[in-house]
Amino acid sequence: MQRIIGIDPGLRVTGWAVVSLADGTIEPQLVEAGVFRLDAGRPIEHRLEQLFDDLEALIDQHEPAIMVVEKLYVHYRHPRTAILMAHARGVILLAAQHKDVAVAHIPSTAVKKALTGHGHASKEQMQHAVASQCGLREPPSPPDVADAIAIALIHGRRVAVGRL
Amino acid sequence: MQRIIGIDPGLRVTGWAVVSLADGTIEPQLVEAGVFRLDAGRPIEHRLEQLFDDLEALIDQHEPAIMVVEKLYVHYRHPRTAILMAHARGVILLAAQHKDVAVAHIPSTAVKKALTGHGHASKEQMQHAVASQCGLREPPSPPDVADAIAIALIHGRRVAVGRL
Repeated sequence: MQRIIGIDPGLRVTGWAVVSLADGTIEPQLVEAGVFRLDAGRPIEHRLEQLFDDLEALIDQHEPAIMVVEKLYVHYRHPRTAILMAHARGVILLAAQHKDVAVAHIPSTAVKKALTGHGHASKEQMQHAVASQCGLREPPSPPDVADAIAIALIHGRRVAVGRL
Repeated sequence: MQRIIGIDPGLRVTGWAVVSLADGTIEPQLVEAGVFRLDAGRPIEHRLEQLFDDLEALIDQHEPAIMVVEKLYVHYRHPRTAILMAHARGVILLAAQHKDVAVAHIPSTAVKKALTGHGHASKEQMQHAVASQCGLREPPSPPDVADAIAIALIHGRRVAVGRL
């Protein structure tokens, strides 16, 4: 059995999800998911430290074999947002490395395509696909948590297929 | 007396400089400067950890009152470079916060204008201005170290003027 953490990085809200993949199975099971909300009123260095501490605690709790982190687009419509997300992403990668957890990077479009068939699925489509495929009664909310579940799930399926 | 660290963030080369500002003086003195070179052949998470460790060691050695970090442009010609720099910058801010060092942010154009009179001074102009104003026999090289010295120097002058 191995655990995989999926991360949807953000400087206001970072989505996270833990899935487990049992030996001999091909479908990862959702263990737990949520979001880290960072206080937008505090200076960026405080928010980064909060994110780092939250992530280290999550890693300690679940002892994942791997952390899968969404890649950033290079051509964002909002370059300022991309720059801020990249600050958060740097700290997320550092937390994994600091805790000796292997890191994988996955583009958002690959996750969306694998889960819904469309590389540009909307937030709502992703939330519904995650609910349906994980057997949840309601779509996970906010969208950041659905994205994190999707990231962990798709990477877990790739791992399962890879060991067949 | 207080020490100020200036940082020019990068994921291959991060420039750093330490200046000291004695009580009752208005011109900061250069203490030491250099660059952290990160191994471009290693995964990004390794490079970020190396940068974090190098910075914490620098802070321990010099015990600065403040760390001044160059702001990133939002409209880079090379958005991929900006995204990578922002990963490094996130880790730099985290190191300062982790060590209880106050953080200041300064735009590159403000540093260039204060040092040379031109907000878009070339790398060579910056290297020569730093050498001249710090009484160095040769222009500091690579340009990243000159930029870091300029950042620490200009912030130090602002602090000195502010307490007049």
